[in-house]
Amino acid sequence: MSRRTFLTGLSLGAAGAATAACAQPDNATATAQAEQPRHGTHTIAFSGPHQAGIATPAQAHMNLVAFTVRAGIDRQGVARLMRLWTQDASRLTQGQAPLGDLEPEMVTSPANLTITCGFGPRLFDIIGRQQQRPQWLHPIPEFSRDQLDDAYGEADIVLQLCCDDALTLAHATRHMIRSGIDYVSTRWMQQGFLTPPGHNPEETPRNLFGLKDGTVNPREERDLDQVVWIDSPDTWLNGGSCMVVRRIAMNLDTWEILDRASRETAFGRKLDTGAPLTGQEEFQAPDYEATDEYGLPVIDPMSHMARSTNPADKPGQRILRRAYNYDQPPVPGSESTSNAGLVFICFQRNPEEQFTPIQQRLDEADRINQWITHIGSAVFLIPGGVGEQPHQDTYWGQSLLEN
Amino acid sequence: MSRRTFLTGLSLGAAGAATAACAQPDNATATAQAEQPRHGTHTIAFSGPHQAGIATPAQAHMNLVAFTVRAGIDRQGVARLMRLWTQDASRLTQGQAPLGDLEPEMVTSPANLTITCGFGPRLFDIIGRQQQRPQWLHPIPEFSRDQLDDAYGEADIVLQLCCDDALTLAHATRHMIRSGIDYVSTRWMQQGFLTPPGHNPEETPRNLFGLKDGTVNPREERDLDQVVWIDSPDTWLNGGSCMVVRRIAMNLDTWEILDRASRETAFGRKLDTGAPLTGQEEFQAPDYEATDEYGLPVIDPMSHMARSTNPADKPGQRILRRAYNYDQPPVPGSESTSNAGLVFICFQRNPEEQFTPIQQRLDEADRINQWITHIGSAVFLIPGGVGEQPHQDTYWGQSLLEN
Repeated sequence: MSRRTFLTGLSLGAAGAATAACAQPDNATATAQAEQPRHGTHTIAFSGPHQAGIATPAQAHMNLVAFTVRAGIDRQGVARLMRLWTQDASRLTQGQAPLGDLEPEMVTSPANLTITCGFGPRLFDIIGRQQQRPQWLHPIPEFSRDQLDDAYGEADIVLQLCCDDALTLAHATRHMIRSGIDYVSTRWMQQGFLTPPGHNPEETPRNLFGLKDGTVNPREERDLDQVVWIDSPDTWLNGGSCMVVRRIAMNLDTWEILDRASRETAFGRKLDTGAPLTGQEEFQAPDYEATDEYGLPVIDPMSHMARSTNPADKPGQRILRRAYNYDQPPVPGSESTSNAGLVFICFQRNPEEQFTPIQQRLDEADRINQWITHIGSAVFLIPGGVGEQPHQDTYWGQSLLEN
Repeated sequence: MSRRTFLTGLSLGAAGAATAACAQPDNATATAQAEQPRHGTHTIAFSGPHQAGIATPAQAHMNLVAFTVRAGIDRQGVARLMRLWTQDASRLTQGQAPLGDLEPEMVTSPANLTITCGFGPRLFDIIGRQQQRPQWLHPIPEFSRDQLDDAYGEADIVLQLCCDDALTLAHATRHMIRSGIDYVSTRWMQQGFLTPPGHNPEETPRNLFGLKDGTVNPREERDLDQVVWIDSPDTWLNGGSCMVVRRIAMNLDTWEILDRASRETAFGRKLDTGAPLTGQEEFQAPDYEATDEYGLPVIDPMSHMARSTNPADKPGQRILRRAYNYDQPPVPGSESTSNAGLVFICFQRNPEEQFTPIQQRLDEADRINQWITHIGSAVFLIPGGVGEQPHQDTYWGQSLLEN
């Protein structure tokens, strides 16, 4: 390929040769490992009965991208997209350039990258598989306090990308968007961050109110089986889950003028340790019967913790929270000095029995409501993983999409 | 403080006591250090002849916040703001809660936080010190290819916050905005990220085109003295610098259809190593005389590297680049599938002799121009540091602002 070719055109003919020269650069990877103590080359397995990015300890950064299937794309088209995306994700998450990717330097720091795919309600109409759509796969009923913006509403397909390196995350997100461009257009992207727990899974991340978020998450395999993973005779669904996404605006202006005791009362937990107000350690069980010197309950029954805890007769009302903070520039002309909140993501077997009744209680009464507003809502079915030893052509949702 | 007080009001009376109880939580810090190998407690010194955040190796995340001084605020008001902000920054960057901050848990992972302050052209009018304004402190002249959006234009004051932990960065940014709220309003905020170089300063960060950005940066103290730091008999200015901010949109859609050879020709360097096309290693000097088998120069004279390199007779035309990537959700309805680019930040002694003539050459001819557009521009004077052993009341710009 000569200078002249470049100056008169895009040299697309040379792309194949360039791609062939872009096999995984082992030297570059080894170098990066030695030089980048904070990011580097740690990977999360892509294969397995479940998709990664759900039970995986939360990484520092997340892009959640929702897509609309283009007009004219049918089941065969969606199947092709899923084959493409599954292959791309299986390589990107392992620090390997996908086929056709011209930028192998951008994937040498996989940094725990996970890519998780989900299907929105309408996808089952598009692929002509309405009867396979689980009865729970529909928009979450609107709650009284919701102020939902359709700009963060339901979509046909979602990709959740999480990574400890923001540059790798940007590149992987970009690759997936471009790779699917003939089949889907981007409907919205929600971006978030947190302080990752490092090697201690008990270091629960904090949100921008300073509250530890996710203390009561299921962590043991048995818990995850009860709360998160779907049992199904259908291969594509077995080991899958349901993702509920809520965009929650948090009013820092008014929250921050509260003193610490008031914040703890509203939350039900201590700010420093995350312990229930009746305890000393984060993972202690709260004592809702305890009263103070005036005979008032130590834990306010209207506190966020008390309202979100599952009642004793509803042991199944639990979810896996995997929320990310967002903090964007203040909207010009807005009275608020911030534009911050939570990309609240939770996983469960069935939102009708888990997220929705919990949120119904919170919507009715939760001290924290004064400082938050739900402004976006979407629900997705997460197909099962590709299995422990996937074939090269195994893809997400395969037995649903195949003829 | 009782439940009743909380339910009927904000309990502001108790805030003093709560603050007193929020001295630096040593135990929490020690715990975080043990538990958070990737983030943790490393700090960058705040004191010194120069402000931190300039010669400091780039951290993973940046918020650049520009402010407008509120009507009615005069020199005394700006001096009070600088005293407040200098004290806050000196504590936040060392992992200590600022006075009056109710969230000590949010600063236990300083993670190399730096906070750097600069003054825009109009500030010298506001404080009635027009004669102290350096002659170079004015908007950068508009170039022929500029498509500047005033939403990213000149401002009165800027804070650059950089940190390896995005949550700490969000909290510190929020604290500074709130702390200055009586004096300034937020004009814009630009956010960026990169893969930090870790312990090897030769690992130059890449931008979203995959190009290593900043290879020829000055690194040695003598170089920094020649390129970056201002010598002045005025205490407030000595050891300071000039920050030029350019928001540069990068068109990934069209860049990505180029093959690798074309990208390297446009850049003048190899994609993998960052070496000049005439060399093998990143820091090798380019050989602009070398020709290929057709007698054409190996390094295109119109390549970005060739055009940005200072001519032999202009040894002073160098800058310290400290750019961050941005990658935001695509604008709804836009034809582009991305909204990405560079928050280009550079430091120098005098932009009229450094940034502006370099950019003039690039504006006239640079192969990369086809894929980029400058959409924002601002210039700031960075006052010197608070010195090696600052008094408790020493603040940025003190000898300029004092009566």
